[in-house]
Formats: sequence, structure tokens, C-alpha cells
Amino acid sequence: AMDGAPPPTSPTGLSAYVAVSQLLGLTLLATTGAWLGRYRGGVAWHSPLQFNAHPLCMVLGMVFLQGDALLVYRVFRHEAKRSTKALHALLHGLALVIALVGIIAVFESHRTKGIPDMYSLHSWCGMAAFVLYLLQWLLGCGFFLFPGASFSLRGWYKPQHIFFGIALFILSITSCLLGITEMLLFKISDSYSHFVPEGILANTLGVLLVAFGLVVGYVLTREEWKRPPLAEEMALSMDFKTLTEGESPSGGSQ
Amino acid sequence: AMDGAPPPTSPTGLSAYVAVSQLLGLTLLATTGAWLGRYRGGVAWHSPLQFNAHPLCMVLGMVFLQGDALLVYRVFRHEAKRSTKALHALLHGLALVIALVGIIAVFESHRTKGIPDMYSLHSWCGMAAFVLYLLQWLLGCGFFLFPGASFSLRGWYKPQHIFFGIALFILSITSCLLGITEMLLFKISDSYSHFVPEGILANTLGVLLVAFGLVVGYVLTREEWKRPPLAEEMALSMDFKTLTEGESPSGGSQ
Repeated sequence: AMDGAPPPTSPTGLSAYVAVSQLLGLTLLATTGAWLGRYRGGVAWHSPLQFNAHPLCMVLGMVFLQGDALLVYRVFRHEAKRSTKALHALLHGLALVIALVGIIAVFESHRTKGIPDMYSLHSWCGMAAFVLYLLQWLLGCGFFLFPGASFSLRGWYKPQHIFFGIALFILSITSCLLGITEMLLFKISDSYSHFVPEGILANTLGVLLVAFGLVVGYVLTREEWKRPPLAEEMALSMDFKTLTEGESPSGGSQ
Repeated sequence: AMDGAPPPTSPTGLSAYVAVSQLLGLTLLATTGAWLGRYRGGVAWHSPLQFNAHPLCMVLGMVFLQGDALLVYRVFRHEAKRSTKALHALLHGLALVIALVGIIAVFESHRTKGIPDMYSLHSWCGMAAFVLYLLQWLLGCGFFLFPGASFSLRGWYKPQHIFFGIALFILSITSCLLGITEMLLFKISDSYSHFVPEGILANTLGVLLVAFGLVVGYVLTREEWKRPPLAEEMALSMDFKTLTEGESPSGGSQ
């Protein structure tokens, strides 16, 4: 029954890369907090500091949690697919809720201060990332969680879901970098070019965001690290796509 | 001898996606030219307009030509691997030279105007992209063009080369978006929030850059569109990696 089943250990290197990604993710949050706390007066909701909830929520939701949701199939590679899938959907759902709070923060803050909405490239990219991310989440639930979709429909949608999932993660990080640049040019336009500590700190946050994206992207795209189907999935023909398309055991699953 | 060889036609859809990518690429250049020509006084070298050579060269070199160099293995899928490889290296080399001109433009322009260099997130990301792109090109030539590298060394480096190649392409596009945001906030900070035509045009350039990245990325990562080894490569055992690692014919080549 164990024919073709992988040993229950993780591939060499995977755990180290995942550990680095989590350290980077926590460093992202700490760096964002340090920037807002040390130089921007901190974060509060019903106050002129409401805007500051925006970067914090977006880094937490659209980057850290979205990235971790993508890693779930690599990390929990020996759990039942159903549970892993539920965790994947749950983390993305949580990311969406936190991102929504962050978006409300910026719109309310703009309204209070009389600043127009949605004129900048940051807002265009960021809003596109959020709306398409919500759409992708709804489509993912419809195709993969509810029992209605046929196996062949799932098989057709799965590569699109994976491609657009990674693309939206990248667009989310790009939107954060645009937001950092905007915020620095609004707040410290006179001193930014003199290498002041706030500018260096915020630039470093940008570099950390790129590094997080790189490590998560590397883990996701490395062929040998993709989740192999479990022995039960193979034996019980649960992974219908693998059988119908005649793929190799290691290439058939997400 | 033709056993396992693909028919000499391109897969359905590939040509359409490649055509769209080229239309987007040309639209990128036209939009950059329109922005610089219509709103920024045009481009000239020994003049206060020298700065404007920077965005033009970077979009042409680091985006359009870099993207086309990545597509070469998909477009010329039935040519000999050696020629396709040479074209890949040549296009990247051309992209590097044009990008270098663009970098010289911004450094000389800063020196003339007394503006400090390398303080912004745009400059950090852009310089990282350029330096790593140059390094990747040198490594690519060393591993794949010169006959010294062993087959197993090439087989080890190839997935890294592909991953970092796509990552640097994405980082290049991200750097362009950061540059657009910086330039708008430097030049039209007062009117940007009023949806003036220059702001809309430059934001649209940003969206087109994202679209170009998406289409190129989709073509590159679609499994069925990867270049299959030619019949001769299979028969003459030229694709050593395929044989040693026992991969399927469609998965063994770039």
C-alpha cells in the first residue's frame, strides 16, 4: 500500500527555507511597527493616527498572512488534503478581513483630512490586488471547497489558481513598496535625500518585503518541494486528476 | 527517429499570448515616449533633459528586451537549442547595455543638478536589479555558453537560473513602478491628486508594465508551453540531463 508514497520527512532544505520565511515575516511586522511607532506617532483608530493602521494591516494581511497561506501545502505536506485546503482558505480569509480593515483606515483618514482617493499608482495597484484577491478567494472556495465542481473543471482551474495566486502575492508586495515610497515623499520629502534614519528604515522595510517574496516564491516554485499525494489519496483514487491525466505521482498535486 | 518528437507547430494559444506581449511591449515604449515627449520636454543627452533618457532606457532594456529574452525559448521552440541560447544571451546583453546608458543618464543628471544618489527605495531596488541581472548574465554565459561547465553542474544551476531570471524580471518591473511614483511626486505633487492627464498617463504606464509582466510570466510558467527537446537532441543524447535524471521528455528542457 505504501508503493510510491514519500517517507514522512520533509525534503532537505525545505524546513530551513520555511523558517527563514517566518523570521522574515516577523521582522517585516516589527520593522513596520518600529517605523510607525518611532517616527509616525503610533497607531490608533479614532484619531489622526488612523492612517497608520493602513500600512500595518496591509503588511500583516496582504503580505505575511497571504504568503503563509501559500506555504500551507509545502509545510503540512503529510496532512490530509482536506484539512490543508481548509487552512489555506482560512488564512486567506483572515488576510482579506485584515486587509479590508486597512483599506477602511485609509479611506476614513482621507475623508477626515479632505484628501482625494484612488488617484495614485499605489492606490490603483493596491486596489486591483485586493479586489482580484477577493475574487480569487471566492473562485477558490467555489471550485475546490464546495462539492459542486467536477473533477475536470477543478483540473482546468487549478493551474490558473496557482499562477494568479503567486501573481497577486507579488502585486501585493509591489503595492507595499509603492506605498512606502509615497509615504516617505509625503512625510519627509525634504530630508529623505540626506539618508535620514527614517528613510533608511523604511527602505529596509522595502528590501525585507522583496526578500520575503523571494523566499516564499522559491519555496513555492521548487519542483521537488511540491506536495506529493498521500498514499491513501493514490490508493483510493482520490486524486482523480492524477489518474485521468496520467501524471507522475510527484507532479500531480499542488 | 521522430518518436516522441513534437509536431512542428506551436501549441494553441501560445502565439496569441506572445502577440499580446509584443503589442503590450510596444505600447509600453509608446506610452513612455508620450509621457516624456508631451509632458517632460522630450529626451536629449547633453542637456537638462538628460534625466529623461533614464526612464526610456530602463523600460526598453530592463523590461521590454529582458522580457523578450525570456520568451525566446517559447517562441523559437523548434530551432536548434544552440542558436536559441545565443539569441537569449544576446538580447539580455543588449538589455544590459541599454540599461547601463539609462543608469549613466540619471547619475550624470544628478551630478549636474547637485541631487544625491542612491537614497530612495527606487534606487535601491533598481540598482539591485541591475547588478544581479549583470551577475546572472555572467553566470549564464559561464555555465551554459562556454564549454567548460559539466553537464551535472549545468543541471544543478539551470533551475536557479530560471527562478532568479523571472525574479529579476519582476524586480525590474517593480523598480519601474517605484520610479514612476517618485517622478510624479517630484514633478506634479500639487496636481497629481486632481487626476490631471499626466498623472493618469503615468499611472496607465504602470498598469501596462504590470500587464506585460503578467502575460510574459504566464507564457513562461505554463507547463505545456515549455520548449520540448528536439528529435535530434533526444536521439543524439545531447540533452544529457533528461537522460541522467530520467525525466519525462516534456519536462526535461527549459
